Amino acid sequence: MTHMSGTLGIVAGGGELPIAIAQTARDKGRAVFILALEGAARPSDVASFPHGFVSIGEVGKAIRLLKQAGCSDITLAGRVSRPDFGNLKLDTRGAMALPRVVAAALKGDDALLRALLGLFEKEGFTVIGSAEAARDLLAPAGPLGKLKPAKEDQSDILHALRVVRAMGALDIGQAAVVCRGLVLAVEAAEGTDAMMARIAELPGALRGTVKQRKGVLVKAAKPHQERRVDLPVIGLHTVELAKAAGLAGIAVESGAALIMNRTAVAANADRAGLFVYGFGSAEFSR
Amino acid sequence: MTHMSGTLGIVAGGGELPIAIAQTARDKGRAVFILALEGAARPSDVASFPHGFVSIGEVGKAIRLLKQAGCSDITLAGRVSRPDFGNLKLDTRGAMALPRVVAAALKGDDALLRALLGLFEKEGFTVIGSAEAARDLLAPAGPLGKLKPAKEDQSDILHALRVVRAMGALDIGQAAVVCRGLVLAVEAAEGTDAMMARIAELPGALRGTVKQRKGVLVKAAKPHQERRVDLPVIGLHTVELAKAAGLAGIAVESGAALIMNRTAVAANADRAGLFVYGFGSAEFSR
Repeated sequence: MTHMSGTLGIVAGGGELPIAIAQTARDKGRAVFILALEGAARPSDVASFPHGFVSIGEVGKAIRLLKQAGCSDITLAGRVSRPDFGNLKLDTRGAMALPRVVAAALKGDDALLRALLGLFEKEGFTVIGSAEAARDLLAPAGPLGKLKPAKEDQSDILHALRVVRAMGALDIGQAAVVCRGLVLAVEAAEGTDAMMARIAELPGALRGTVKQRKGVLVKAAKPHQERRVDLPVIGLHTVELAKAAGLAGIAVESGAALIMNRTAVAANADRAGLFVYGFGSAEFSR
Repeated sequence: MTHMSGTLGIVAGGGELPIAIAQTARDKGRAVFILALEGAARPSDVASFPHGFVSIGEVGKAIRLLKQAGCSDITLAGRVSRPDFGNLKLDTRGAMALPRVVAAALKGDDALLRALLGLFEKEGFTVIGSAEAARDLLAPAGPLGKLKPAKEDQSDILHALRVVRAMGALDIGQAAVVCRGLVLAVEAAEGTDAMMARIAELPGALRGTVKQRKGVLVKAAKPHQERRVDLPVIGLHTVELAKAAGLAGIAVESGAALIMNRTAVAANADRAGLFVYGFGSAEFSR
């Protein structure tokens, strides 16, 4: 199932994920090429890998660079802000693809992603998910560090999962924070970071504190989500945010979420007094 | 159905709503008494009405003051932050009621409200909703000012309503912002104001601007909501927030939401170039 032949092409937006994938694949001995999106991926992050830069509208150039690098498998990862379709730097291929992409974008993020995947597949690339490109990033089952969710945390995980699934069915977001049964925050277009930042601004009676941690962050894939592109991701930054928000821990579905820098995440969570837990799909199903 | 006899008791939290109710009832010739909650209602706001102050834990004193004022109907309105149950100023009655109230609080805001209503009903008060106490506050059908939702806005209203109903079924919140099909924000524990404030921080490509308004705020009651207590409310402040967020307008369900200072809301919305729309439950049902 896993294609280990040829160079892995990583179409890279911003954030740590594309780099974590490149690193993990290279550690396994695979050649990688990063196609970095201008304005999203940082030059300093991609510098230590073979790479090239394109604007998001330069579809022709993107395909040419990936082919020149010998990529047959490609994976899309990292944050990309929704482009301003009126002010896009387009090449011919980009201009031709634009109407379909804009139409898809109006239907939601998932539709937009599927349209982009379709473009690459038509060119003969095999689009694989982050998990397939770097299997070692997949969240394992059970506690990652030394701490486990207590009984109340388990109820909060279950309720947050229910919320995230309801949200996901409407293509809203993939994260929620629940504290002792109360939904503190739900992620929409602002993203997980901004959602987490506002927890600390809520009235103290509603939430945990650094001294008395309570509440959980749950991230889970949308039910109909294009799993090749957009699995939930956590990393060191997520642990920092959960720590600052006074949460008891973080939970993701094992095998259906990615954890970047797993060893360091476990160590930092232990130090902060947080659990990081991979629940089974059976454990909390429905 | 409407009880117009006797003094109307208004158990008042923070914000404009309790004052709007008192004003509206008094304009109709009804005597009112405001039972103001310490730390929530502002002394300057209640000063021009007969009133008394109690802590949220002084249940015995609250009942005594309401009875002394000759109230038989009471209504609960305004924002109250969830009390820190460990640090509550309690009288005997408050202490006796506490275990039940804390247990209810753990089940969500609606359960908490129902428990509080139960306390008053046991004492022989009739608890009525804001709408019954001040019927003139109910949102009318159709556009409030000169502007109407355009076709795209109607789709956004429909989608936002779908989101709010899904949220409401899980007791999460009662407001969402949708812009051209994309869910920009969903309200949870942070409240509508904080939710609206973050719209302007989203990437420009996702949202409207003061010059090119798009997107809508929809507020709607939770499906199982205790309508006597917690109908969605909009007012001048909501118009300000929608204006700053670059939205095209605000929509609420006619007959199931409250509009404070209706005339001024319509005038300010017109001036800002926003619609304020009361949709029928049939118009956007399912």
